Amino acid sequence: MESEPTRVMVAVNESTIKGYPHASISSKKAFEWTLKKIVRSNTSGFKLLLLHAQVQDEDGFDDMDSIYASPDDFRQLRERNKAKGLHLLEFFVKKCHEIGVGCEAWIRKGDPTEVICHEVRRVRPDFLVVGSRGLGPFQKVFVGTVSEFCVKHAECPVITIKRSAEESPQDPADD
Amino acid sequence: MESEPTRVMVAVNESTIKGYPHASISSKKAFEWTLKKIVRSNTSGFKLLLLHAQVQDEDGFDDMDSIYASPDDFRQLRERNKAKGLHLLEFFVKKCHEIGVGCEAWIRKGDPTEVICHEVRRVRPDFLVVGSRGLGPFQKVFVGTVSEFCVKHAECPVITIKRSAEESPQDPADD
Repeated sequence: MESEPTRVMVAVNESTIKGYPHASISSKKAFEWTLKKIVRSNTSGFKLLLLHAQVQDEDGFDDMDSIYASPDDFRQLRERNKAKGLHLLEFFVKKCHEIGVGCEAWIRKGDPTEVICHEVRRVRPDFLVVGSRGLGPFQKVFVGTVSEFCVKHAECPVITIKRSAEESPQDPADD
Repeated sequence: MESEPTRVMVAVNESTIKGYPHASISSKKAFEWTLKKIVRSNTSGFKLLLLHAQVQDEDGFDDMDSIYASPDDFRQLRERNKAKGLHLLEFFVKKCHEIGVGCEAWIRKGDPTEVICHEVRRVRPDFLVVGSRGLGPFQKVFVGTVSEFCVKHAECPVITIKRSAEESPQDPADD
């Protein structure tokens, strides 16, 4: 009899080009890589823990044209954001369901690096998969990389999956 | 029908305490982790590529008491070293055979970081597993870490498996 399934946390985020509910190229790639190369046909041997760290829209840029007339408007904004995150997770959960691999998906608000490391400590996955845009040193200065931070600080083994060259948009900072 | 097996390269080395043919605690741990958490019961879905980077005994320390009287003596020394590496690989290949997972094992001489990155480029595994002694910043200055170099430079996804605290010898630089 097989032991408990291997618990693989996969960090997912939205596309910087297309926005919600579209998944970023790199997180989709990391997810698909995990299914193809690790899970393979052994769907009962793995459980995917899909974590979406939702960045707070602190400067309200996405809602520049919104009008806030009551406290309720802010509540609605928060609910709208939550709904966007849920749509993103739906994409991944649906795929897991089709393949027949167990999963759990959830959203945490905050800085992705802190959120991921915090959730690793809380949930204790066997390992963590993060996608990476594979930026050069010049671009890294400006956009940073969540994956590098996780490799250093997450308290579990971490595997970073880079986008392939042909999957990268013209500006590699896009995703 | 399943596609080609996932090719997992595992870098293995000898114990710094016990010497050949004993495997280091960290490479044994990385190997066992791969079998338990990734391969699981799906033995036909994976192939392990076991690479031993053999450090050249440049200062001849291990052979201080040997007497070299002819060119043949040096050839014998080289053969003895090769035999030691083979004994190390035998341990891993035997385990794979018992479990029924396909494997290939080989030795390359040279600096482990360079050897591993070179072999990754040549063999193109789906990912690389390296063990790590989990040294603190002070010890790293002196012994360096092969795993960190591979994470940065190997041209494939890399997963680093740290020894657990209870597996570490009194001096973490030992392995």
